[in-house]
Amino acid sequence: MGLNIYLSGEIHTDWRKQIIDGCAGSDFVFSSAVTDHDASDAAGDVLGAEESGFWRDHKSAKVNAIRTKTLIERCDVAIIRFGDKYKQWNAAFDAGYCAALGKPYITLHGEDIVHPLKEVDASAYAWATTPQQIVDILNYLVSSQ
Amino acid sequence: MGLNIYLSGEIHTDWRKQIIDGCAGSDFVFSSAVTDHDASDAAGDVLGAEESGFWRDHKSAKVNAIRTKTLIERCDVAIIRFGDKYKQWNAAFDAGYCAALGKPYITLHGEDIVHPLKEVDASAYAWATTPQQIVDILNYLVSSQ
Amino acid sequence: MGLNIYLSGEIHTDWRKQIIDGCAGSDFVFSSAVTDHDASDAAGDVLGAEESGFWRDHKSAKVNAIRTKTLIERCDVAIIRFGDKYKQWNAAFDAGYCAALGKPYITLHGEDIVHPLKEVDASAYAWATTPQQIVDILNYLVSSQ
Amino acid sequence: MGLNIYLSGEIHTDWRKQIIDGCAGSDFVFSSAVTDHDASDAAGDVLGAEESGFWRDHKSAKVNAIRTKTLIERCDVAIIRFGDKYKQWNAAFDAGYCAALGKPYITLHGEDIVHPLKEVDASAYAWATTPQQIVDILNYLVSSQ
Amino acid sequence: MGLNIYLSGEIHTDWRKQIIDGCAGSDFVFSSAVTDHDASDAAGDVLGAEESGFWRDHKSAKVNAIRTKTLIERCDVAIIRFGDKYKQWNAAFDAGYCAALGKPYITLHGEDIVHPLKEVDASAYAWATTPQQIVDILNYLVSSQ
Amino acid sequence: MGLNIYLSGEIHTDWRKQIIDGCAGSDFVFSSAVTDHDASDAAGDVLGAEESGFWRDHKSAKVNAIRTKTLIERCDVAIIRFGDKYKQWNAAFDAGYCAALGKPYITLHGEDIVHPLKEVDASAYAWATTPQQIVDILNYLVSSQ
Amino acid sequence: MGLNIYLSGEIHTDWRKQIIDGCAGSDFVFSSAVTDHDASDAAGDVLGAEESGFWRDHKSAKVNAIRTKTLIERCDVAIIRFGDKYKQWNAAFDAGYCAALGKPYITLHGEDIVHPLKEVDASAYAWATTPQQIVDILNYLVSSQ
Amino acid sequence: MGLNIYLSGEIHTDWRKQIIDGCAGSDFVFSSAVTDHDASDAAGDVLGAEESGFWRDHKSAKVNAIRTKTLIERCDVAIIRFGDKYKQWNAAFDAGYCAALGKPYITLHGEDIVHPLKEVDASAYAWATTPQQIVDILNYLVSSQ
Repeated sequence: MGLNIYLSGEIHTDWRKQIIDGCAGSDFVFSSAVTDHDASDAAGDVLGAEESGFWRDHKSAKVNAIRTKTLIERCDVAIIRFGDKYKQWNAAFDAGYCAALGKPYITLHGEDIVHPLKEVDASAYAWATTPQQIVDILNYLVSSQ
Repeated sequence: MGLNIYLSGEIHTDWRKQIIDGCAGSDFVFSSAVTDHDASDAAGDVLGAEESGFWRDHKSAKVNAIRTKTLIERCDVAIIRFGDKYKQWNAAFDAGYCAALGKPYITLHGEDIVHPLKEVDASAYAWATTPQQIVDILNYLVSSQ
Repeated sequence: MGLNIYLSGEIHTDWRKQIIDGCAGSDFVFSSAVTDHDASDAAGDVLGAEESGFWRDHKSAKVNAIRTKTLIERCDVAIIRFGDKYKQWNAAFDAGYCAALGKPYITLHGEDIVHPLKEVDASAYAWATTPQQIVDILNYLVSSQ
Repeated sequence: MGLNIYLSGEIHTDWRKQIIDGCAGSDFVFSSAVTDHDASDAAGDVLGAEESGFWRDHKSAKVNAIRTKTLIERCDVAIIRFGDKYKQWNAAFDAGYCAALGKPYITLHGEDIVHPLKEVDASAYAWATTPQQIVDILNYLVSSQ
Repeated sequence: MGLNIYLSGEIHTDWRKQIIDGCAGSDFVFSSAVTDHDASDAAGDVLGAEESGFWRDHKSAKVNAIRTKTLIERCDVAIIRFGDKYKQWNAAFDAGYCAALGKPYITLHGEDIVHPLKEVDASAYAWATTPQQIVDILNYLVSSQ
Repeated sequence: MGLNIYLSGEIHTDWRKQIIDGCAGSDFVFSSAVTDHDASDAAGDVLGAEESGFWRDHKSAKVNAIRTKTLIERCDVAIIRFGDKYKQWNAAFDAGYCAALGKPYITLHGEDIVHPLKEVDASAYAWATTPQQIVDILNYLVSSQ
Repeated sequence: MGLNIYLSGEIHTDWRKQIIDGCAGSDFVFSSAVTDHDASDAAGDVLGAEESGFWRDHKSAKVNAIRTKTLIERCDVAIIRFGDKYKQWNAAFDAGYCAALGKPYITLHGEDIVHPLKEVDASAYAWATTPQQIVDILNYLVSSQ
Repeated sequence: MGLNIYLSGEIHTDWRKQIIDGCAGSDFVFSSAVTDHDASDAAGDVLGAEESGFWRDHKSAKVNAIRTKTLIERCDVAIIRFGDKYKQWNAAFDAGYCAALGKPYITLHGEDIVHPLKEVDASAYAWATTPQQIVDILNYLVSSQ
C-alpha cells in the first residue's frame, strides 16, 4: 500500500527532509505548503501591490490556501510539526481542518509544549517527538506483516 | 432570524460578556467551551488519576472535545478570539475545524498579530479588533432591513 | 407541512412583498439577504475604512455572505428573481450555490432573458414569470390534497 | 504536484489559450464547457426539434450540464472569467456551484465590474485582471519551493 | 420518541388512511406527495400551457418533486407501497432515492410481485403485506420497552 | 476527457451493444449489472439453498447490489433504459439512486410511457428514444469543441 | 445546553437507569434500542413466521435497525457499555457506526476487557468504569462554567 | 471491472490466504490490518514506553487505526470474519464503520454464532460460511456476463 502524506508546520528546521530521507524506498507521496518564507509571503503580489499589510497578507494567504487545501484534502495522513519558536497558528489551523475532515494526523513536538497543544493532540492519532519516530510509524503503517 | 453563535478562544478577558451584553434583545444563542481554566484542565480527572501530564491533559482535552465539537457543529457562526498572551493553539484549531465544515467565523484580535494569523484570517468572513464591532456585525446580520 | 423559503435577487421592485402577501395564512418562513442597498454596501464599514473600492466591497460582501449562506443552507426552496436591469450576478451565484447543495429553486424572470438564463433555468425546478405564479406554486406545494 | 483546472465563462476572447499556453510544461489538466457557441446551443437538437425557444434551450443546457457538472466536480481549482459583454450568468452560476462544493476559484475580470461582482469575488480565493496573472499564480501553486 | 414518516406510492386504495388511523396516539408525523391524481398532473399548469404532453408532464413532475424531495429528506422512515395496477415507477424511484440517502424504508406489497421487486426489497429494512403490519412495526419502533 | 458510463435497465434487446459499438474510439468505460438473467437470479445460490422464493431472491439481489451500487457510485453518467415489457422497477430504483447522489442520468424509452415515467424523467438530464441519440449525446459531451 | 444521548450495549444490568437517574435535572434526552430481549428478538415476527433461525433473526434485526440507526444519527454523544457476559458485538458495531459518523462516544467497561476493546477505545472520547463517572462527565459537559 | 477488498477480523487461521489464492487472476486489490499480533500490539512502542497497559494499547490501537481507517475508506467491499475464539470486537467495529459509510460488506462465520451476530449480519450484503463461498461471490461480481 502507498500513502499520501502532508507535512504541515514549522519551516525553520530540516524535519521534512529527515522524514522524506528516512522513508526512501517506501511508496509515499509527500507534499507541503510552499516552505520558502519570502516566496510564500509574496504569493499574491503578482495580483497588484497593496498599501495595507493586512491585505497583502490576505491575498498571499488565500493564494497559498488553494495549495494547502488541495493537498490536505488529497492526503491520507498529515504530520503536524510545532517547533519552539513563533506562533505557528497555521499548523494548529491545519490540525483542526484535518480533524473536521476525519483525516488522521500525527503531531511532532517537544514535551515542553504538551499542555498548550492538548486540544490539538486530543484529535491526533499519535504524538511523536522526533522525525525518526515519524519515519518508523510511517514505515510500519505500510509494512506487509 | 436567529443565530447560534460559538465563542472560541481567549479566556482571560471579558470579551464574551461584552458581546453577549451588547447583543441583548436579539435572537442569539451563545455557547462556549468550559471557560473555567482549572475545571477544564481537570475535566477527565473523575475517570481516574494519571501519573503522566500528557495523559491527564489528553483525557481532559477529549472530554472537553465532546462539548466543543458538538457546539461548533451546531453553530451558525463562530467568533474566534486571539488575545495577547499564550499560544492559543486551540483557537486556531477551532478556526481550522470551522473552515473545513464551511462554518463562517469572524476573528477578533489586535493589529500586532495580523501577520502570524494570516492563514486563519484568510478563511475568516471578517476580522474585528473590538467586541463592539462583533456586536454591530451580529446585530446587522439579523436585522430586517 | 411548512416550508422555509429564501428569496434571492432583484431588490428594486416589490416582488418579495407580493409573494409574502399572497402566501399569508400558509406555514411559510420567508427570508432574504439585507435588501437595503446602502446598508448592504456598508455592511463592513464598522470594521474600519478602506481606501480601495475593491476591499470595501469585499469586506461588506463577506459580512453579507454570513447571512445569505446561512439562510440558503436553512431553506427548503429558493426563489431566484432576475429583473430587467443590472448584472445580478449575485442571483446567478445563489442559483449555482443552491444547485450544488441540491436545494430546489424556482426562477422568476421575463421571457426576454430566457436565452442567457438557460444554464440557470436548466437546474431550476420551475420557471415563473409573475409573483402570483410563485404564490400559486408555493400554496400548492403545501396543500393537503 | 499536478492540478486539474476548469476554465469557466466568457467564450469570445482567447483567454483560455493564453492561460494554457502560458502554463505549458506544468502538470495541469485544463477543461472547459463546449465553447463553440452554436454547437453548445444545439446540444439537445439531436433529441428532437422543439417549437418553443425555452424548451430548445432547456434541452441543450441540460445536456451541457452533464459535462460542466462533471468537470467542475473533478477540478481542483476553477478560473471564472467575466468579459465586458453579455450577461454571463452561467459564469456566476459556476462560481456559486464551486463555492458550495468548497472548490477554490479565481476570478478574472476588469476593474470596472468589481462592484457588481462583489458577491462572486467574496468567495473567490483570488481576483486577477490578466491571463498572465493567472499563469503566474498557477505556476506558483505547483512550484517545489 | 417520535418519527417522521413518508408514505410513497399507490394512490388508488386507502392504505395511507389505514396506517394513519392505526397509529393514532403515537408521536408520528405522516407526509405524502399530493395524492389527488388530477391536481398532481396539473401542478405545473399555472406556469403556462404546453402543447406537448412530455413538457406538461415534465413541468408538473418537477413542481411535485420540490415537495417529495423535501419530505423524503425530512423523514426518518418511508413506507413504499406497490399496488396491483399501473407501472408505479415513481415508487421505485423513491425507494432508490431513500437507499442512496441511507433512509430506512419498508415496502408494502403482495406476494405476487416479490420477484420483480427484488432489488427494491433488497435495500428495504422490512417487507410487509398489509397496512396493519406497518402499523404494528411503527408502534413497536417507538415503544418504550 | 473520458467518461465512466453505467448502463441500467432492460436486458432483452441489444441497446447496450448499440451504444458501446457506436461509441467505439471515444474514451468511455461502460459498465452494467450482470445482464445474464439466470446468472443474476442465481447470484446468491452458492451461499446455500432457500425454500422460500423471497429469500432466494433477497440473497441474489443483495449480492448483485454490491456490484450495481459500486458501479453507480463510480460512474459519471448513467443511461436508464425502459423497454416495453416487464415492471423494470430496478431501472426506476437506479434512477432514484442516481438522483439522490447527484449523478446525471439520461433516460432511454419510447413515447408511449412518457406519462408513467414523468417523475423519473423529471430528474433526468435528457430523454432519448433511440440508442443512436445516446451515442450522439455521449460523443458530443467529450468533444473538444 | 442540552444533549441527546444514546445508550448502547448491555441489557442485563441497570446501568441505563443509574445514568438516567443520576442526570435528573439536566437537559438530556436519553434513548436506547428496545432493551426487552424477547420483544427485540420477536420484532419481525408480525411480518410472518420463518422456519430458519437466520431469517427470523434477520427480519427482527432489520426492524430494530430502523430504530437504532435513527437514534444514533440523532444523538450528540453515545455511551457504549460492555458487560462481562455475552459477545456484545452489537455494541462494538454501534461504536464503529458512531466513529464513522464522527459522533463522540464514551465506553463503559471493566479493566479486564481493556485489551480486546483497544480498537473500540481508540476511537472513544473517554473510557469510564462506572455509571457514576458517566453521570459526572455528562453533567460537566453541560455545566455553565 | 476491478475491486478493492478489505479483509477484516480473525487472524488465527489462513482464511485470508484462501480467499486471495482463490481469486488469483481476477483484478482485485486485497488489504488488511497488520495481522502479526505482536507487531500490532507493539505499534506504538516506538513513541515511548508506557507503564499502564491501557495507554500502551491505546497508542498502538491509534497507530493501527491510521491504517485500517485508510484502507476501509478506500475499499469497495469488506469481508468481515468472525472465528470461534476471542471477543473480536474490532471486527464488529469495522462492520459498523462500513455500515455507516455505506460500504458493502460480507460476513464470514459459522452457524453457531448467527444469533449474537444478527445486528452485524442485518447490515451485511451477504453471509458466507466458507472462504470458497467468498471466492465464488467475488469472482461472480466482476464477471462479464
